Amino acid sequence: MSKIYKIKESKLYEFCKKSLIKFGMDEADASITAGHLVQTDKWGIYSHGTKNLFNYINKKNAGGVSFSNKPVIELELPSLAVIDAKQTLGFVSSDFAMKKACELAKKTGIAIVFVKNCCHFGAAGCYVNIAAEQGMIGGAFSNVDKQMTVPGARGLVMGHNPMALAAPAISQPTIFFDASSSNVAVLKVLRAKAHNEKIPDNWIVDKNGVPTTDPSNYPSEGALIPMGNHKGYCIAMFIEIITSIITGSETSMSGNIPSWCFNLTAPNNVSQTFVAINAEAVCGKNVLEKRIEDMIETLHNSPKAEGNDRIYVPGEIEWEKHNKSQSNGYIEIPDDVYERLHQLEELSGFSLKIEE
Amino acid sequence: MSKIYKIKESKLYEFCKKSLIKFGMDEADASITAGHLVQTDKWGIYSHGTKNLFNYINKKNAGGVSFSNKPVIELELPSLAVIDAKQTLGFVSSDFAMKKACELAKKTGIAIVFVKNCCHFGAAGCYVNIAAEQGMIGGAFSNVDKQMTVPGARGLVMGHNPMALAAPAISQPTIFFDASSSNVAVLKVLRAKAHNEKIPDNWIVDKNGVPTTDPSNYPSEGALIPMGNHKGYCIAMFIEIITSIITGSETSMSGNIPSWCFNLTAPNNVSQTFVAINAEAVCGKNVLEKRIEDMIETLHNSPKAEGNDRIYVPGEIEWEKHNKSQSNGYIEIPDDVYERLHQLEELSGFSLKIEE
Repeated sequence: MSKIYKIKESKLYEFCKKSLIKFGMDEADASITAGHLVQTDKWGIYSHGTKNLFNYINKKNAGGVSFSNKPVIELELPSLAVIDAKQTLGFVSSDFAMKKACELAKKTGIAIVFVKNCCHFGAAGCYVNIAAEQGMIGGAFSNVDKQMTVPGARGLVMGHNPMALAAPAISQPTIFFDASSSNVAVLKVLRAKAHNEKIPDNWIVDKNGVPTTDPSNYPSEGALIPMGNHKGYCIAMFIEIITSIITGSETSMSGNIPSWCFNLTAPNNVSQTFVAINAEAVCGKNVLEKRIEDMIETLHNSPKAEGNDRIYVPGEIEWEKHNKSQSNGYIEIPDDVYERLHQLEELSGFSLKIEE
Repeated sequence: MSKIYKIKESKLYEFCKKSLIKFGMDEADASITAGHLVQTDKWGIYSHGTKNLFNYINKKNAGGVSFSNKPVIELELPSLAVIDAKQTLGFVSSDFAMKKACELAKKTGIAIVFVKNCCHFGAAGCYVNIAAEQGMIGGAFSNVDKQMTVPGARGLVMGHNPMALAAPAISQPTIFFDASSSNVAVLKVLRAKAHNEKIPDNWIVDKNGVPTTDPSNYPSEGALIPMGNHKGYCIAMFIEIITSIITGSETSMSGNIPSWCFNLTAPNNVSQTFVAINAEAVCGKNVLEKRIEDMIETLHNSPKAEGNDRIYVPGEIEWEKHNKSQSNGYIEIPDDVYERLHQLEELSGFSLKIEE
């Protein structure tokens, strides 16, 4: 069991914001970035929250990401826009892009906004929730560096390209879902490896491209398996098509995408795409929310599997963690996140005053 | 090994078309329906092709589907439309809806068309290919009757809602992908059962909602498992949201969707949604095709897994079968399809003259 630290939300937010400003970001962009990072921690998605800020700042100092550039709209049609992120951090360009998608969708029914030349955008769930909070259905997609094999192949062939989807609800602020197109996350394999455990045979392939239950040589050898094999492969490929391929980004799975965190000097150059559907135009926000709530109730009341007493809907676990933070008045931070925040305290000179 | 029959494409098409007309469909709709059914067989997707026509006609005769109604546009915005299918067969309304989506997307960049009160639409791949052949990226989604469990549940909780995606290519007419959100198809489980074989533990759960390797009690007990567990669950739910829930269809997973083929008298009442993205507006059809072709080449040339000598891209197997039919001058029809076609010969009075 790892140690848990307690940090007031406002303190964590101010610490992140001040740190970003100190390293060159303006106040507006720093507010957006800090807001999404802290929200991600409140949902309990620690792998994509404030933990990464230390590395974002290192990447900025190494020249791999810009804290001062502004995303530029290259093309705007009634329901489509193309944005050049100019190597900004993904939080800035993605927040801008999803708000643009919502603005267009309000007038036309649906809109899609493509962002190229960008860096890591954290948790895709942040942006789809922007749409859902406006009563819209939101989608977010990104290509990423290669972590996955595809059926018949060996080695790293394709990114485990993530997608997120969200819609408004009543019993929880939104329902949302944020996942990669691999069967499981890299971290899950590494955790089994650390505990010398065998894994199911649909998580990774070995160096020969053959499914294995032994994670001991991963990640230096082997690759993640797509969810549902050819299904996750096809989904990842179509995410690649609507991100890097349609925008003609310099880096796609045909080339080579540098890891945002292991290669600090190279621009990450990923592409991200945002979709907003204006439900208001079809049935009205209240009607949509009510119908989604009926579905949630049906799911909650469905017969349970042996040994289970609860069926969760997408985002329910995350919003419960969020609510717990709100009522506690602090965010619970595990020690691996604390360690990075402490490194950032030393780098930035700002104190976070963590309550243990 | 099942017996294979050889049928000339033009004969099969005329047989289907004449049968539809005999039972009340007008020539235009019969041409569309017969065209998609035959194309589906040419791709080798026999479970969704001409095999089902006998049952569609039975359903029409039983009052569960209309061969004469026309889909009606209820709402049209610059990039969004809602169509009431008026219980037509899905081929008619889906063809109409995807062409409408392409027409709108050409002007605005992207469009979405929702269809409610509809019947089975066959292979979703048919409609996304309409978009891809126009240089667009196409998506098609449908809710269906419940076949799947969700994490923590037992029994049939949600449809294994299918999606299809397509984009233009050069070495093959399009790349396309058409799959349900369950880990495997019902037919795959039934085939293992028929051969008394054990199955992997991620295909189905038993009557207690526990994963099982024994298919012998399926489908009277148990349910399909979503691809990647919670991932396929969330994808199926969002397909439900953008089909039945947003359109307020009378039947959604919260209620009960009658099986289109096992309940002939009840309207199927599913909802289907079509998306077209106008790639021309972003990079031009030729540029998109070239970039997709680069990706296909990269995939084909990737290192192969032990025991494999080929990596396929989406739709490659289907277009190879299509090309084989074209060069042979006939379509190969397996005996389970032949049996249904023969039943239809007796029902319609038209002869197909099958060459064995």
